[in-house]
Amino acid sequence: MSTTTEQGYSTGRARRERIIQVATEHFGRVGFNGTTMLEIAAECDISRAGLSHHFPTKESLLEAVLETRDREDLQRFRRNGSGRADGMGILRGMVDLAAHNTQVPGLIGLYAVLSAEAADAGHPAHDYFVARYERIRRGTASALRRVRDAGRLADDVDIDTTAIELTALMDGLQVQWLLDPTSVDMAAVMRGQLERVLTGPLFDEEPVEADADIEPASDDDQPERAVS
Amino acid sequence: MSTTTEQGYSTGRARRERIIQVATEHFGRVGFNGTTMLEIAAECDISRAGLSHHFPTKESLLEAVLETRDREDLQRFRRNGSGRADGMGILRGMVDLAAHNTQVPGLIGLYAVLSAEAADAGHPAHDYFVARYERIRRGTASALRRVRDAGRLADDVDIDTTAIELTALMDGLQVQWLLDPTSVDMAAVMRGQLERVLTGPLFDEEPVEADADIEPASDDDQPERAVS
Repeated sequence: MSTTTEQGYSTGRARRERIIQVATEHFGRVGFNGTTMLEIAAECDISRAGLSHHFPTKESLLEAVLETRDREDLQRFRRNGSGRADGMGILRGMVDLAAHNTQVPGLIGLYAVLSAEAADAGHPAHDYFVARYERIRRGTASALRRVRDAGRLADDVDIDTTAIELTALMDGLQVQWLLDPTSVDMAAVMRGQLERVLTGPLFDEEPVEADADIEPASDDDQPERAVS
Repeated sequence: MSTTTEQGYSTGRARRERIIQVATEHFGRVGFNGTTMLEIAAECDISRAGLSHHFPTKESLLEAVLETRDREDLQRFRRNGSGRADGMGILRGMVDLAAHNTQVPGLIGLYAVLSAEAADAGHPAHDYFVARYERIRRGTASALRRVRDAGRLADDVDIDTTAIELTALMDGLQVQWLLDPTSVDMAAVMRGQLERVLTGPLFDEEPVEADADIEPASDDDQPERAVS
């Protein structure tokens, strides 16, 4: 590849990332329905045609926004040891995610608005969010089973119900936090709830820093397509 | 009042209720920002001027929608014995509300979308939702204190954190339920969480029916104004 082509590629990628960033902010503030492609193009200082070159439809842009977030979350869980046989990496990842979320209010606002809008079966992200919650509940239940097998889960815990509750708690805390960040310490509440279902502490060593260096994800470990 | 005037008043009230019903459905499906007054007027078979006669602005219509829901919820809690000295009526009211919510998906969709949109400080319902969550947490904490005074709260319960958690759980369950009603039994999960913090059962007699007859609320017991 020539230097010029490399620069063109790099500029194109930077522009694409900028569009995703602006779209994330818009979707998060006024929702998918309230956002227009014209506004996004204007804020990115490109023409509507220039925007179409990267994302032909608003749905394709939404897809990129959701996939970007999912990829980042997956990397976060991996850093927390989601592959550990005892399942504790996933539970620690939830506390880490709750802490990290306070750094990205636009993104969690986006998910709060979109997941609620997407309850409508005609919403372009409906199938995505249905599948996403199934995956989160299934992943959490699977982690809790591994925690039980490792002898670290309290006896009276119903695994499937706890998976629903932990998922719900994370979402509900975000609503309160988005409205008033002083009202709740999301990571502390998540940690408290998790320790209630464990026989011992959640962290037996120092917790992983919220923004430690990222080990790149392999290509074969991506979440499902974001928008159907 | 003449019969004609009475009929006019009754027709006007019926129309007003119809507008609130249509607006609730629209706000719940596409959000406050995605709804136009023209669409609401069209679906109510009235002119834009006719709609303005009842609700001069979209904000005033939103206010009526939220106040209607709050008044209904307040009546529901009162029927469940929210005035009981031991605080148990409030906790039972939460399970009753979770059960009732499965009958009004449009309304809970509305609250899910609006509470998320309202995180933006410029949203007309921002102050309303901040105040609403403060009131819910405060009311829940107050009930839990009365439950403790009555000797019915488990020893290790942190009251303020539990108030945050129960509020978050209710909201988060709604997101999962709206996306897939088969994924979660909201009332059962709420009841399970509540029984975890109690020393005994939540219901010592038969639970109140979800839609028992309503005893009208007194005028001096209304929630705060919905939209600032």
